[in-house]
Amino acid sequence: MQTTNNKYQHTFTKEYKMSISIDELAVFAKKKGFVFPSTEIYGGMAGFFEYGPLGVELKNNIKSNWWKTFVQSREDVVGIDGSLISSAKIWEASGHLESFADSLVQCVKCKKNHRADHLVEDKLKINVDGLNADALNKLIEDNKIKCPDCSGDLELAQAFNLMFPVQIGAEKTTDSTAYLRGETAQMIFASFKSVIDSTRVKLPFGIAQIGKAFRNEISPRNFLFRTREFEQMELEYFIRPKDKKCPLLEKKHINLELQFYSAEDQNNKKEQKNTKISDMIKAKLLDEWHAYWLAESYMWFVNLGINPKNLRIREHTKQELSHYSSATFDIDYRFPFGWKEIHGNANRGQFDLTQHMKHSGKSLEMFDEETSEKLIPRVVEPSFGVDRALLTFLYDAYEDDKKRGNIVLKLHPKLAPVKAGVFPLVNKLEKETRAVYDMIKDEFVCIFDKGGSIGRRYARADEQGIPYCVTFDFDSLENKEVTIRDRDTTKQERVKISELKKILYEKLK
Amino acid sequence: MQTTNNKYQHTFTKEYKMSISIDELAVFAKKKGFVFPSTEIYGGMAGFFEYGPLGVELKNNIKSNWWKTFVQSREDVVGIDGSLISSAKIWEASGHLESFADSLVQCVKCKKNHRADHLVEDKLKINVDGLNADALNKLIEDNKIKCPDCSGDLELAQAFNLMFPVQIGAEKTTDSTAYLRGETAQMIFASFKSVIDSTRVKLPFGIAQIGKAFRNEISPRNFLFRTREFEQMELEYFIRPKDKKCPLLEKKHINLELQFYSAEDQNNKKEQKNTKISDMIKAKLLDEWHAYWLAESYMWFVNLGINPKNLRIREHTKQELSHYSSATFDIDYRFPFGWKEIHGNANRGQFDLTQHMKHSGKSLEMFDEETSEKLIPRVVEPSFGVDRALLTFLYDAYEDDKKRGNIVLKLHPKLAPVKAGVFPLVNKLEKETRAVYDMIKDEFVCIFDKGGSIGRRYARADEQGIPYCVTFDFDSLENKEVTIRDRDTTKQERVKISELKKILYEKLK
Repeated sequence: MQTTNNKYQHTFTKEYKMSISIDELAVFAKKKGFVFPSTEIYGGMAGFFEYGPLGVELKNNIKSNWWKTFVQSREDVVGIDGSLISSAKIWEASGHLESFADSLVQCVKCKKNHRADHLVEDKLKINVDGLNADALNKLIEDNKIKCPDCSGDLELAQAFNLMFPVQIGAEKTTDSTAYLRGETAQMIFASFKSVIDSTRVKLPFGIAQIGKAFRNEISPRNFLFRTREFEQMELEYFIRPKDKKCPLLEKKHINLELQFYSAEDQNNKKEQKNTKISDMIKAKLLDEWHAYWLAESYMWFVNLGINPKNLRIREHTKQELSHYSSATFDIDYRFPFGWKEIHGNANRGQFDLTQHMKHSGKSLEMFDEETSEKLIPRVVEPSFGVDRALLTFLYDAYEDDKKRGNIVLKLHPKLAPVKAGVFPLVNKLEKETRAVYDMIKDEFVCIFDKGGSIGRRYARADEQGIPYCVTFDFDSLENKEVTIRDRDTTKQERVKISELKKILYEKLK
Repeated sequence: MQTTNNKYQHTFTKEYKMSISIDELAVFAKKKGFVFPSTEIYGGMAGFFEYGPLGVELKNNIKSNWWKTFVQSREDVVGIDGSLISSAKIWEASGHLESFADSLVQCVKCKKNHRADHLVEDKLKINVDGLNADALNKLIEDNKIKCPDCSGDLELAQAFNLMFPVQIGAEKTTDSTAYLRGETAQMIFASFKSVIDSTRVKLPFGIAQIGKAFRNEISPRNFLFRTREFEQMELEYFIRPKDKKCPLLEKKHINLELQFYSAEDQNNKKEQKNTKISDMIKAKLLDEWHAYWLAESYMWFVNLGINPKNLRIREHTKQELSHYSSATFDIDYRFPFGWKEIHGNANRGQFDLTQHMKHSGKSLEMFDEETSEKLIPRVVEPSFGVDRALLTFLYDAYEDDKKRGNIVLKLHPKLAPVKAGVFPLVNKLEKETRAVYDMIKDEFVCIFDKGGSIGRRYARADEQGIPYCVTFDFDSLENKEVTIRDRDTTKQERVKISELKKILYEKLK
C-alpha cells in the first residue's frame, strides 16, 4: 500500500464507508446544492443531472486541476476543445457506429427494456464485461433469468447502439445525420493533423481534451456513476512505435505500491494483491510508457486526497478488451455498490490513426525529426470521467462526524468549492469583518456568513467542505488579529489580519 | 466616448480594422492553432468548429474571467451547470418549441434552402429582425428576390424550428423526445427552485451558467459568429418586482459614455449618438437595474481591452422585441461584416418563472425576508456568447505590424493563452534557462522556446499573443538577471531572476 505524507489523505475505513449508500449521498448532494436531478420541477430525467452552486465550483476545480497537471504544467501536452455534434464519418472510422452497443432484452409481458449484462450481473454476481449478445442469451436461458419488474419471460438480447443521432440542417440527406460524440478521444484523433500542422509538437507528445460525451444508456443508475450525458478528461499520448523505454519514469512511479487485480487472478477467482508498478513492468503486463501514465493517473487521485485503500488497478481480461486495445488497466474505486471503474488506461497502439487515415484518405503520418522518418505514432490513453471523479471525491471526503454532530466534507483544499468562510462573531462587528472579507475575496473563493451562532456557522461550513473559517471578534478590534479554524482538526489559530492573505495562500497551496 | 486608463486598451482605427476580413482572420486562427473547422480531415462540417491548443486556453481564460467577475467575486450571484440534453417540457413552457424558428425559403429550381431574413437583408440592406414569415414573403415578392445560387424563383417562406430533437432510451414514446438546449437561460429558470431550496440566497440575487447551446441554423456564417453549436455565459438576476432603485449603481456606471443607437434613431434612419447611461435612465429607456447590468456587461469588454470605438449599445425596436422581453439592449461590435450583436441584455420581467409555474404546477414563488411576503421575482438577463466574445477579442487584438513584419495579437494579458515565453539566447544556455522556466511554469502558463533566432522567437510569440518574453543570455550567468520584453511596446527591461516571479505576477495582475 502506498503511503504518502499528504495531510489531506482521507483515513476512513472500509467498514465506515459501507455505512452510507450512494442514494444517501445523492440526497446530501441535493440538499447542499452540489447536484440536482435535471429538470426536477418537471419530474426529472433519468440519467441527467445538473450541478448546483457548490457542485459547479467543485467540478470546475477538478477540471482545472486536471488541466493544470496534465496540460499546462507539461511541455509535452497541448489541449483542444472539439465540437459535441460530430460527423458520422468519425464514428464510422472508429467503429462506434458498428459496435458501440449494449445488449438489450425486452420483457415479453411488460415490454420493458433491460440491459442484459446488468440482469446477469445482478442475478449471478459475476463479471460479464465484454460478453456479446449470444453469450448473454445463453446465460439468461441457462439460469432462467426473468424480468426483474414483472417476472415475465425475456426476448432474446439485441445489440442496441449507444450513439445519439442528430439531424443537421433543414433537409434529411445522406450527409445530414451527425452524432453527439460518444467519447472525447476520437475528436483528438480526428484533429491530430490540424494540431501537428499548427504547432511545433515533437514526439513523444500528448493532446488532451475536457468535454461532454453522450451515451444512450438503457438503464442509467448509481447517481452520477452511469449517466447519459457526462464529461470526460482524456489524453492521447503519441509515442514513436519503437520507443519502449520511457525517460519520464521516475522512482516515484516505479516504487508506487498499490492494490492490483490481474486478469489471471480474476480468471482464477482470486483476490487482488498488493503490487509495485516495477513488478508489473517486470512481469511484462505493461510497457514503460503505459506504466508511466497509469502511475501518473493513479497519483492524481491520491494527491488530491483519495484514500489508496479505496483504489485498485484492475487489468482487463482478454474477453473484455476493446477491439482497439492491446492492454487496458482500470483504476477502480470501492463504491458502496462495489469496485467500479473511475479511470481507464488503454494501450491503443496505432489503431485509431490508421483507421482515420483509411477512412479520410488523408495521411496522418508525422515527420519525426529525431529519426528523420515519417511514422504513425502509437498511443497510450489515460481517460478520466469528470462526473465519476467528482462522485469519488465527494464520496471519499464524506464523513458523518458523530462527535461534532454534523457531516464534514473533507475535500482537498484545492478542490473545495469555497476556500474560506469569513464570520463576524456578532452582527455588530459586520462592518469590520466585511473589510477582512473584501481583502481576500478577489484572491480566494470565499463566503461571508453572519447567520446564527458561530457553532452553527462552523457546522454549515463543514458540510460545504470549507477548509478554513476566519472569525472576527471583539479582540480583533484591538489587536488586529483573527481566528482561523481548520475544518479537519477543528484547531484554531490566531493570526494577524495583515498576514491573513499570505497564510491562507500557504495553506491552500 | 468612454476613456479609460487601461493600458491594454486597443487603439486601432476604424480604417485599419476594415483591412482584414473575417475569412482572413479564420485563416490566421487556423494557422496558429486557435480555431479549426470541425472534422477537417473529413471535409469539415458547416457551423461547427474546434478550438486548437491556443484557442482552448483563450476560451478558458474568457470563461474563467467572466465567472470570476460575475459569480465568484460577488456575494449575490451563484452558479449552476445544467444538462445539455433537456426535457421537452422546459421548451414547451418557454415557448421555444412553438416560436423559436427562422423563416426558410426553398428555391423552386435548385431546391436549396435559404434563410429568408438573410436574403432580404443581403439584397435590400435593411434590418428585418423580428419580421415574421408573411412580412418576409411580402418583401421577397415586392422586390422580386431570387435564389442567390441559381436565380430561380423562391417558394413561400416557412417557419423552421431551430431546436435539435434527441431520442432518449430504446423506445420512442410520448416522453422520449428531448432537446439539445437552445439557450442556457431556461435551465436556470427550471432549476430556480432547486437553487433557492439548497442555498441561502436573498433577493436581489443572480444565478449564472456557462455552457453549450445548440441551434439548427439554416445558414451558419461569418466564422465563429453564427454557428450551430456555441457556448453561452448567462446570468439571470432576480429582483423584487417593486424595486426600481438599484443600490449597486455607482458613478462609474451612470457616468459611462458610449455610442448608443436608440430604437427611435433606427426607425428614423439616423446614426447612433454618444450618450451617457444616466441620460438613458432619465429618458426612461431602461430602469436602474437594467442600466446597472448593461453598464457592468459593457465594462467587462472594455476592461479586457476592447476598443470602445468598436462598441455600441443598440436598443431593440418594438418589431424585433422577443415575446418575453419588455426592453432589450444589445452590445454590438463593429465587425468587418457590420455592427453585430455580441451581448444581449433583456428585461424579462416575470415571464419565465410564471410560465414554468404554469407548466410544472410547482410554485416558484419565493419568500422575501425583507418584506415578509411571497413573490415571483422579476428578471434582468445579461447574456454573452463565449465564441462571439472570443471572436471579438481576437479580432480587436489583431494587428498587422508592418514595421515589425509580423502579426501582433494584442490580447489583454489576462486573456492571453500563454503568459510568458522563456528563451535561451543560444542553445548552450538551455540548461540554465530551463531552471528559470521551471521556476515560473507552475505559476503561469508559459512556453520554453529555443528554435531559431531571438527575433524569430519574438515574432512567433507576438503572433501567439504572448505578452512577455524572458531571455537568458551570457550576462545572466554572471549577474543573475534576465531581459523581459514587452509584446506591445517591444521595450526591454533587465530584472533579477530572483524577482522574476513577483514582477511577472504584478504585470499580469
